[in-house]
Amino acid sequence: MRNTIGGLGEFTLITRVTAQFPTTDDVILGPGDDAAIVAAPDGRTVATTDVLVEGRHFRREWSSARDVGHRAVAQNFADIAAMGARPTTLLIGFAAPSDLPVQWAEDFTAGVRDECAVAGGTVVGGDMVGSDTLTIAVTALGDLGGADPVLRSGARPGDVIACTGPLGLSAAGLALLEGGVDGPALCLSEHRRPSPPYAAGAEAARLGATAMLDISDGLVQDLGHVARASGVHIDLDSMSLEPDPELLEAVRILGTAPERAPETARGLMLAGGEDHALAAAFPPDAELPAHWRPVGRVRQASEKAGSGTDFGVTVDGSPAPGGGWDHFGPG
Amino acid sequence: MRNTIGGLGEFTLITRVTAQFPTTDDVILGPGDDAAIVAAPDGRTVATTDVLVEGRHFRREWSSARDVGHRAVAQNFADIAAMGARPTTLLIGFAAPSDLPVQWAEDFTAGVRDECAVAGGTVVGGDMVGSDTLTIAVTALGDLGGADPVLRSGARPGDVIACTGPLGLSAAGLALLEGGVDGPALCLSEHRRPSPPYAAGAEAARLGATAMLDISDGLVQDLGHVARASGVHIDLDSMSLEPDPELLEAVRILGTAPERAPETARGLMLAGGEDHALAAAFPPDAELPAHWRPVGRVRQASEKAGSGTDFGVTVDGSPAPGGGWDHFGPG
Repeated sequence: MRNTIGGLGEFTLITRVTAQFPTTDDVILGPGDDAAIVAAPDGRTVATTDVLVEGRHFRREWSSARDVGHRAVAQNFADIAAMGARPTTLLIGFAAPSDLPVQWAEDFTAGVRDECAVAGGTVVGGDMVGSDTLTIAVTALGDLGGADPVLRSGARPGDVIACTGPLGLSAAGLALLEGGVDGPALCLSEHRRPSPPYAAGAEAARLGATAMLDISDGLVQDLGHVARASGVHIDLDSMSLEPDPELLEAVRILGTAPERAPETARGLMLAGGEDHALAAAFPPDAELPAHWRPVGRVRQASEKAGSGTDFGVTVDGSPAPGGGWDHFGPG
Repeated sequence: MRNTIGGLGEFTLITRVTAQFPTTDDVILGPGDDAAIVAAPDGRTVATTDVLVEGRHFRREWSSARDVGHRAVAQNFADIAAMGARPTTLLIGFAAPSDLPVQWAEDFTAGVRDECAVAGGTVVGGDMVGSDTLTIAVTALGDLGGADPVLRSGARPGDVIACTGPLGLSAAGLALLEGGVDGPALCLSEHRRPSPPYAAGAEAARLGATAMLDISDGLVQDLGHVARASGVHIDLDSMSLEPDPELLEAVRILGTAPERAPETARGLMLAGGEDHALAAAFPPDAELPAHWRPVGRVRQASEKAGSGTDFGVTVDGSPAPGGGWDHFGPG
């Protein structure tokens, strides 16, 4: 039983795991005491938390342990970036059945370590406990570097809405996995290991972004949060959404006729979640680098088209297919 | 089904829950955006995380939702206090079956809110997800207020070991619950709702504590961490451990003969976990307030009695009954 975490024992596993994480300039005190100490040079700490549950947020048969480690880091550090902050450190709660293979825990750790290296952060603390349900709770901290945070509430009429990072690829990857069909590797990999544009968060703050968030529930639904928080209306230009060739290929594999593929692909870009791209509002005169792709405009809320039931977001002036995602709902 | 969290829906529940938490001077930005922003006035943030799993760390038949809320806060803020820091804020990941009664979630929230009020902190963020296993992941942040952190590694030969807060009561409460017998309310309440001496953490730092931790796995086992980290030996004086009358009553109810009750009670004070009292090492000339009870001395590691398998802690000069607790082990 030495090849399960129950056989190995908690303390041995913690020692093995924590040895994986390098220290950084942000770490004043790493794992091993009652608590860690993280530098907060400008007198503020940005903090967010997410819980990943097996069977709900990942499946061991669809994602490797390493994938899950990457994803756990990515979705939390994306939230830090979406405030205009630099990801610094993580605390990870790991609840697992005692028959979980040690190899799974070690591969998960390697995924966390490698995604931390991409984002520029590291792990400073955690907890390991037994549970019938494999559950990973991640808290991410970040540093604003003296900048004002970019909230959801600052978008103003006339602002440009721009995105950076992939859109729709993760949803396509999930659909391929659910359908049990092979498809473009990029879609599968973006579902398994999203690649948030971490550095673009602080960059957007420097560029004068008035509002920003990360796309976890779909572009339309998430921009609805910006519209409501800012008291504005957002209209997206569907023709500005240029589907990746891999996304077009995926929707064809999934059964869409070739001539309808671009429209279906744009639907995934509008409604598909879990890409962890960033969407931001910028003043109309902001000079955006090419990787920030303009996709819409902020308007007066009174210009809002459609019924009172839309989310304050339209596509080409019409009520948008948003969809919703309730984490307690069936399925 | 509106009386279950699945029927109510995630967003409604989050709105209800976050309305419970007041803002404080430590909160720059509370819940509702991609991340929260917490003040870190001295340029550092103390951070720790713990996961509570139903059936492992609490039982719904033994603890009310309110108890679990209190406990989730207490065990995390105790870790903050054990660094010599002041508890400031929490992020809470809440993973629950969709058939969990809304009332349970709301009572849990009330317990969190009330324990936060005792500790002086508040909740700034969280996540709510579905899971077959009710799981609560808490991350606590704290502020050192310009003081040096009190680590586990600073104890020096000659230092006095002192404790503040209850010892053994939680273990007695658990034994009563496991035995299905009634007993002193104080033991049951300390098991259900530990009462860490939060303010004593920063106080110990001011008093010059050289090492400190919170007692979660038992006094002997936890002081073993201090002994190893500091490269010292710790000898406890069992006669300095004065059992509460309620603890003596509990061990008698649990079947110990009256004349042996004090010894059994001291055994629970030495080995019982989850009280979240604080134990610290102080220089011999430190003037300790009465609530810091001296319980032992730090000695040179070379004076260590017993075999190489002890934890660096003796009681009255003899190898100590420490016990161990492996979170992945059976039972």
